[in-house]
Amino acid sequence: MSSEMVTVDEIPFPPQITVAKPLSLLGHGITDIEIHFLQIKFTAIGVYMEPDVVKHLQQWKAPVEKFIRVVVIKEIKGSQYGVQLESFVRDSLAAVDKYEEEEEEALEKVVDFFQSKYFKKDSIITYYFPATSAPAEIGFVSADEGKEEAKMKVENANVVEMIKKWYLGGTRGVSPSIISSIANTLSSNLSK
Amino acid sequence: MSSEMVTVDEIPFPPQITVAKPLSLLGHGITDIEIHFLQIKFTAIGVYMEPDVVKHLQQWKAPVEKFIRVVVIKEIKGSQYGVQLESFVRDSLAAVDKYEEEEEEALEKVVDFFQSKYFKKDSIITYYFPATSAPAEIGFVSADEGKEEAKMKVENANVVEMIKKWYLGGTRGVSPSIISSIANTLSSNLSK
Repeated sequence: MSSEMVTVDEIPFPPQITVAKPLSLLGHGITDIEIHFLQIKFTAIGVYMEPDVVKHLQQWKAPVEKFIRVVVIKEIKGSQYGVQLESFVRDSLAAVDKYEEEEEEALEKVVDFFQSKYFKKDSIITYYFPATSAPAEIGFVSADEGKEEAKMKVENANVVEMIKKWYLGGTRGVSPSIISSIANTLSSNLSK
Repeated sequence: MSSEMVTVDEIPFPPQITVAKPLSLLGHGITDIEIHFLQIKFTAIGVYMEPDVVKHLQQWKAPVEKFIRVVVIKEIKGSQYGVQLESFVRDSLAAVDKYEEEEEEALEKVVDFFQSKYFKKDSIITYYFPATSAPAEIGFVSADEGKEEAKMKVENANVVEMIKKWYLGGTRGVSPSIISSIANTLSSNLSK
């Protein structure tokens, strides 16, 4: 965070203030009206919040149904894909001290599911997360014609949480481009 | 919502899908790496969620401390300002059937607080909302030198909620420019 004053319509606002806790200037704006093409400004406003607010707003934690559709562009062995997912989930759970025997078993089933598959171009992997988070459902449809969809359920809530985080978790997730795309959609909706 | 396919790296994604409920394409992206200046794309990804996710992410509802500093640009009578706040809070509470005697009394105290004041240019109105939402504290410092800060507490949680919504509530709030400013800050933080 910068320590420089932020000016809103020539009025300075400190970037931080402390009431009970240190709060950061999260947004600013003005109130105004336009009369006969003349803008009349009434007030300049600064909004301060605990920086923690961001954690509360992480969309992957919101209790709504989510569905992720992954389409293969470059072919890869299912086992290679599975290994990447496995490392992320295992490391993320270990980091918060939640990687126990049950998690290991649940994760192994996911790895097994991908093990035997080959991800040709245009194959589709899907993840379905109900609003309650677990069980999640993983699906796979090969690009080969006439192949049926393979499905599996992931019952362990901790493993489900980290799979979700892999695609939707921001910082350490697999695709920053998704997150900024979601953030843009959300921010335009939030400001409606 | 549009019904046209969204293409992500030439791969089409439907704008809506239905699993248990109808879900909207909220974001998309790709996974890739760059090797020797060559981008290798692995997958195209579409993320679908209940459109309701936006409600869960409204920042003014997050349980963190908030502080709003309003600086007067154009002078106005405190009573005029108070009337605007009063109408918004009363109408918003009535709309959700929460405008009872207690709310009326609490709101009247707020109106009384502003009644006797004159908002000269550079006067400052502050709103402090603790993480638990109520009681909120309203402050006023006149631009006249030597004036002490006047303060009052708002104990009624429903009234507090709607005062918060006046400045931070988006659609019907007093300043859309604040909301888009906050949304931008949040979205850049969420995608970090």
